[in-house]
Amino acid sequence: MDQKQLYEKFQKESLYRHNLGSVLGHLGWDQQVMLPAGAHPQRQEQMVALSTMVHKLGVCREWGELVHQLYDMGEDKFDEYEWKNISESKRSFDESTKIPQELIEESARLAAQGHALWVEAKKKNDFSLFSGTLEKHLILRKKVAEILYPDKHPYDVCLDGFERGMNREYIDGVFAELKAGLVKLLDRIEKSPKDVKPFPDGPYPVGLQRELNREISERIGFDFECGRIDESAHPFSGGGHFTDVRITTRYEDGCFFNSLSSTVHETGHGMYEQGRMRGMHQDMPVSASLGLVVHESQALLWERMVSQGQPFWKHFGPEIVSTFPEKLSDFDPMDLYRACNRVVFQYIRINADEVTYPLHIILRYELEKELFEGSLKVEELPEAWNAKSHELLGFIPSTDSIGVLQDAHWSDGGFGYFPVYTLGAMYGAQLFHHAMRVIPGLESHCSNGDFSLLKKYLNENIHQKGRLYEARELLKKVTGEDLCAKKYLDYLDRKYSEIYGI
Amino acid sequence: MDQKQLYEKFQKESLYRHNLGSVLGHLGWDQQVMLPAGAHPQRQEQMVALSTMVHKLGVCREWGELVHQLYDMGEDKFDEYEWKNISESKRSFDESTKIPQELIEESARLAAQGHALWVEAKKKNDFSLFSGTLEKHLILRKKVAEILYPDKHPYDVCLDGFERGMNREYIDGVFAELKAGLVKLLDRIEKSPKDVKPFPDGPYPVGLQRELNREISERIGFDFECGRIDESAHPFSGGGHFTDVRITTRYEDGCFFNSLSSTVHETGHGMYEQGRMRGMHQDMPVSASLGLVVHESQALLWERMVSQGQPFWKHFGPEIVSTFPEKLSDFDPMDLYRACNRVVFQYIRINADEVTYPLHIILRYELEKELFEGSLKVEELPEAWNAKSHELLGFIPSTDSIGVLQDAHWSDGGFGYFPVYTLGAMYGAQLFHHAMRVIPGLESHCSNGDFSLLKKYLNENIHQKGRLYEARELLKKVTGEDLCAKKYLDYLDRKYSEIYGI
Repeated sequence: MDQKQLYEKFQKESLYRHNLGSVLGHLGWDQQVMLPAGAHPQRQEQMVALSTMVHKLGVCREWGELVHQLYDMGEDKFDEYEWKNISESKRSFDESTKIPQELIEESARLAAQGHALWVEAKKKNDFSLFSGTLEKHLILRKKVAEILYPDKHPYDVCLDGFERGMNREYIDGVFAELKAGLVKLLDRIEKSPKDVKPFPDGPYPVGLQRELNREISERIGFDFECGRIDESAHPFSGGGHFTDVRITTRYEDGCFFNSLSSTVHETGHGMYEQGRMRGMHQDMPVSASLGLVVHESQALLWERMVSQGQPFWKHFGPEIVSTFPEKLSDFDPMDLYRACNRVVFQYIRINADEVTYPLHIILRYELEKELFEGSLKVEELPEAWNAKSHELLGFIPSTDSIGVLQDAHWSDGGFGYFPVYTLGAMYGAQLFHHAMRVIPGLESHCSNGDFSLLKKYLNENIHQKGRLYEARELLKKVTGEDLCAKKYLDYLDRKYSEIYGI
Repeated sequence: MDQKQLYEKFQKESLYRHNLGSVLGHLGWDQQVMLPAGAHPQRQEQMVALSTMVHKLGVCREWGELVHQLYDMGEDKFDEYEWKNISESKRSFDESTKIPQELIEESARLAAQGHALWVEAKKKNDFSLFSGTLEKHLILRKKVAEILYPDKHPYDVCLDGFERGMNREYIDGVFAELKAGLVKLLDRIEKSPKDVKPFPDGPYPVGLQRELNREISERIGFDFECGRIDESAHPFSGGGHFTDVRITTRYEDGCFFNSLSSTVHETGHGMYEQGRMRGMHQDMPVSASLGLVVHESQALLWERMVSQGQPFWKHFGPEIVSTFPEKLSDFDPMDLYRACNRVVFQYIRINADEVTYPLHIILRYELEKELFEGSLKVEELPEAWNAKSHELLGFIPSTDSIGVLQDAHWSDGGFGYFPVYTLGAMYGAQLFHHAMRVIPGLESHCSNGDFSLLKKYLNENIHQKGRLYEARELLKKVTGEDLCAKKYLDYLDRKYSEIYGI
């Protein structure tokens, strides 16, 4: 076979794998949204059978030979899209074949056990029930990292796994500047004499929330021809294809703002998926979304910068007020804008506001780093958590359940994930800032309910670029600048100076 | 490997195939119920990829060798469940490997084209647009039948494909007696002076219909822990497992009775699936439902015999009336019972009542038989249709669109399917009759809203028997009798004599 034929064969095989793999994405959505309670064991069987099949195809000899044969022809024989398809496939073949089967199985077993033990430990406020598993996860993650990339520090391998190109050196620099700036800003906010009222409690009838959320999701840009919105206990964005993006949200009678935030957040994720590249390379590895930092940036840009911004409330505010007249008719949309940006120190990360949130993340990041570097032992974690909490947030949680045990992430060994949230917010803010600069009148378009220019900007600059560049490279290409804590601090400073009159 | 090890390997491989195959069932449901409009092409790709994979596993050499090795050990080495697992697997391996790939592809292509052409022909009332495809389907079906079972008549092979053991000889006998009896009964009904009023037109608010249908489905026995009810353009029963049975129905504002019928019909199908055998042989071939006649019998028993029966209306009637007081408060439940059994000659099969329905089926069956036997040519079909319609139903359809072109079945070459409906009704009636005889007080239990004894009877006698016996054998084992037109005629006679006072 000549090069062209080989590449075509590769493309066909790649799409076949993609199609089978995408079914797993769909089954995962169904499991959380539609599956009858009694069907969970069978769904597990289905997913194991299909994963096994997809894994087999991904590590089979013929596939590896084909991918390596193309790779060995060299980068200069292909255009940048083709080369990315080949090099990504080679990377994932090599990674998949390097890790021994028993480690994969141990990891899956540990994650399953870990989750149950974490739930119990949290419930009983007893870290010791969970510490053994955490230790095992740590050992396992290090082992896998050493097998995959023996030249790198294991925690860097973890960070890189969530967003290619991330490492401690990069994050350390960004977080140090961010921490210093946030502490100053929070100090000013705390001293502000201005009283920002919380978002009013409900009841907000769920039926009305559902209609309004769908409406808002559609009007900011989610395409319902190629997607759905449903409900699940934990909102997420899933589905199997850019033509079939399935986001979920959650409604509580007592709180409208939570469902709105979730919906807009997942809409941001969903629009990234819906915006993927079409045409020749569609569904090939180059067309996939980048890592989790960039994915989160898309969600947070829409959630924090758009739906917690003034133009959004100028446009949607009156409609929101008139949908819930009993609760909101006394409020000006700008009161609601301020209410949803109210800064309050919170024990729980997921309830934290935009300004204190990064401190929750820095806390976790620093502890993970110490765990991997060996300067902190697992059994010392609760104490270290409390000390860091005191240092960064100014309080010590009254129990481990609302302290070191509050997050599920460590229960499946997801070390290196936490920075995603704050790096994502920073990417989002920097992109949003750039969009405001290069799109004339963007703010007033948004105030008038036209979000299409912002969506188009993200479609063209981020979504359709797929995996052509790594996250940092992409940001530089689009905005001309690297990620920079000062930009994010400037954004927060502008916004919260106005809100708190400081 | 000894026999035990071989069988265990076979069982493991069989379950693996079952699990992958069941995903296809799930994707089919999602396609009709949840899929965003823009995602259909990708869903097609997913289903083709997965079907290809499942097909490959079904015809691969190692699997065939394993199955044949067990089969060659002989029936006496296994218990009847194991033997059925082996012999069913052998049969399906042999059938799958006998048909050349190009015939499978031609058949799929033809079905896809055929459907579009049929839609057009029906729309334009032009049979000639469709006749070429129909001819090709006929040739193809004959060819496949000759490859699979050269000793059998091709139409018998088609009939057998929908329910093992069905053939012309069997059906001819049953249908001849049925036809004669129906003609007499219809003549008496036509001469009745009694005026049965139709079910009142709506509006019946869809939200109320939805709640009530779900409630009725659950109270007659559908298990929502292991199933769902949703909506689709064409009601069906699907899903991937007995713990995950997904039925659908359809609501029209103008008509409550249609949604009720559909819901109960699909509930009947769904309960068959939910009732499958558990334990050692669960998910193995022996646990599968029988062919389509027996499946239809379960749906029609609940639809025609239960939900169009007096006890059902005694129990649910008052609730139905009070749910739609504006439309129904002037009606006695027994008026509604009679209304939903009103006999009217209809051009369209799917709208036909219980008494005339079999004549629509006999018409199609006789024409199919003549097509396969060569005494009727495809181009003569419209004329033959009209003649048969005149003979059996007493009218000639004014157009081919509401005559020979009314059904979709022939567009994908589904010859031999139509008898399923009437044989299913007869099986259903015979089982129901037997249940009434052996369960003391069944009628009054149903009148009091307790349908659990009937469900238990079907669970134990039909659902949990899986594929141990063919349909006729099963009926004989359960009721002591073969299928018999007289029993069905007696049932109709009793019911309609009372309704029409004849």
